[in-house]
Amino acid sequence: MSEQSVKSNQPLFLRAAWGEDTDRAPIWIMRQAGRYLPEYRALKEKYTFLELAGTPELAAEVTLQPLRRFPLDASIVFADIMTPLESMGVKIDFSPGPVIENPVRDVAAVEALRVPEPEEITPFVMETIKILRRELKVPLIGFGGAPLTLATYLVQGSGSKEYEFLRQFLRAEPEAAHLLLDKLADLSIGYLKEQVKAGAQAIQLFDSWAGIHDAEMYREFGAKYATKVLSALADEGVPRIYIAVKASHLYDEIAKLPVEVVSVDWRVPLDQVRPQFPGKTLQGNLDPAVMLSNPEVITREATKTLKAGLGGPHIFNLGHGIFKYTPPEHVAHLIECVHSFERKS
Amino acid sequence: MSEQSVKSNQPLFLRAAWGEDTDRAPIWIMRQAGRYLPEYRALKEKYTFLELAGTPELAAEVTLQPLRRFPLDASIVFADIMTPLESMGVKIDFSPGPVIENPVRDVAAVEALRVPEPEEITPFVMETIKILRRELKVPLIGFGGAPLTLATYLVQGSGSKEYEFLRQFLRAEPEAAHLLLDKLADLSIGYLKEQVKAGAQAIQLFDSWAGIHDAEMYREFGAKYATKVLSALADEGVPRIYIAVKASHLYDEIAKLPVEVVSVDWRVPLDQVRPQFPGKTLQGNLDPAVMLSNPEVITREATKTLKAGLGGPHIFNLGHGIFKYTPPEHVAHLIECVHSFERKS
Repeated sequence: MSEQSVKSNQPLFLRAAWGEDTDRAPIWIMRQAGRYLPEYRALKEKYTFLELAGTPELAAEVTLQPLRRFPLDASIVFADIMTPLESMGVKIDFSPGPVIENPVRDVAAVEALRVPEPEEITPFVMETIKILRRELKVPLIGFGGAPLTLATYLVQGSGSKEYEFLRQFLRAEPEAAHLLLDKLADLSIGYLKEQVKAGAQAIQLFDSWAGIHDAEMYREFGAKYATKVLSALADEGVPRIYIAVKASHLYDEIAKLPVEVVSVDWRVPLDQVRPQFPGKTLQGNLDPAVMLSNPEVITREATKTLKAGLGGPHIFNLGHGIFKYTPPEHVAHLIECVHSFERKS
Repeated sequence: MSEQSVKSNQPLFLRAAWGEDTDRAPIWIMRQAGRYLPEYRALKEKYTFLELAGTPELAAEVTLQPLRRFPLDASIVFADIMTPLESMGVKIDFSPGPVIENPVRDVAAVEALRVPEPEEITPFVMETIKILRRELKVPLIGFGGAPLTLATYLVQGSGSKEYEFLRQFLRAEPEAAHLLLDKLADLSIGYLKEQVKAGAQAIQLFDSWAGIHDAEMYREFGAKYATKVLSALADEGVPRIYIAVKASHLYDEIAKLPVEVVSVDWRVPLDQVRPQFPGKTLQGNLDPAVMLSNPEVITREATKTLKAGLGGPHIFNLGHGIFKYTPPEHVAHLIECVHSFERKS
């Protein structure tokens, strides 16, 4: 944490992200712009997901929707982790999840992927960020997929429970895998630096599928390339957040990544994981299923999470994306719980 | 481990299951009877899954198919963990995964579930076991779903990535949840005792979805009822195997279960988990995706698993079910690797 970066006049979210043990926990919610909001569903009836994510005015509108309802402490640009791959020459359909027309499974397919110039990568996301910075009163988080997670979709070809083709590819074609991951790291570096240049004030790197591997595989194919991306962002002046889910068996490796914030899923309490991440801010980790229950249960469980988050910097979030069935009034209630919880007493 | 139970003339699988650090590791494969075998797919063209699992002669035939091809050290009866629920009055369709006509989500629905007499529970499974014991030269494993995992399907209503309704149900309706889990434990006890009576020589309890919970939730809703079932089998004279996947964050709790064998998925190496399970046999844990690669990679990775399994009793298996794309000749190759590996030298 840099002394210069922590300024008391910075917004709560950024102070916590830079390592300050703040008096209140800032809160934002993964997928806070999305299907649980009737105003999002209304837009979704008129536009496809790709139209929403690919049109700066619409993507900005969707990003702003939860901010109009709720006093959230940060926003995150509405985008998809897969779209940057199109600038490498990959054809992706959404039906509704991403489907890769030609899955990448050999050296020739890896070699055919071009690494684009940074400014070629989804310029509509940069436009969205610029619009949002003019409109927003809270910090804006940019994001991208970690190389291993992008490779997971590229090799498997579609969403999957197990991603078995990626798992076999890493073991059977390690050279092609390394070449692919290195190209994806270069893509991510360009993409995320462009987001910062456009105005993103923090970067979250999603390694959503890291948890399917053991520590040895993760070190070789995951952490190495996540580190390459995150190191390249070291001088950008924005805090870096890393998120993997179902990955508690990898926390010793994740602790070595050059990030300011580690996002933790709901499977392990924050006070239990805190010692594994010395010097880092923890983000998380209420079970999103709690948000489907009722205000009483939400208060009880959120308070448990807030108490477990004491003893170091904490950004409150769910342990994973909010479910589409979540009543919006439960979100209002959660934010009130978090904001009224005094961390210093 | 009981001194009486470990007899040197017992089959290799049972000796290892009872805690003997055998000279060779026995091997069986989760879903060894299934879609990767052309002879299974041929039957599947003529019969539905429910016809195969529900007709003793067909279920026995399917169970025997892999044994005719491969020198496996154990067999496991072909059945489905959901079918016993039908004897409670639950209507289940397979399309192709299980779909519950009326998901159980309140006290009234829980109270409406009857706990059947043991002999009412899927008598066709007991018939299958009897046929198999006449045919088989290797030990036969019986199995059932752990209460929390059965509840997971019953409450969610169908297969799901997240089982969010079960997760919210446990938190919002703990009393109904406990009543449900207790009834499911009674069902499982009856079901598994009947299997032993019919001839099953080991019992594997599948807690496939335990890993979606944190340790506190698992203790209250998972381990408590798994323990009830497993304790009731203590005097049945068969080794008890427990399997949960994606559950390394729960191993401290799982270590307390009254079982002889813990099955481990591929995410953590056996030598690393061994100290967490003193006195238990470890079962596992080759990544099933390795089986999609090639003989060279299979040899390398299986040897790694075999070496990590040294230092205590080990039953070789995959870390999860075999994939349907697996070439059968890869299975033959794996078994050869395992059988030729000398554990004492």
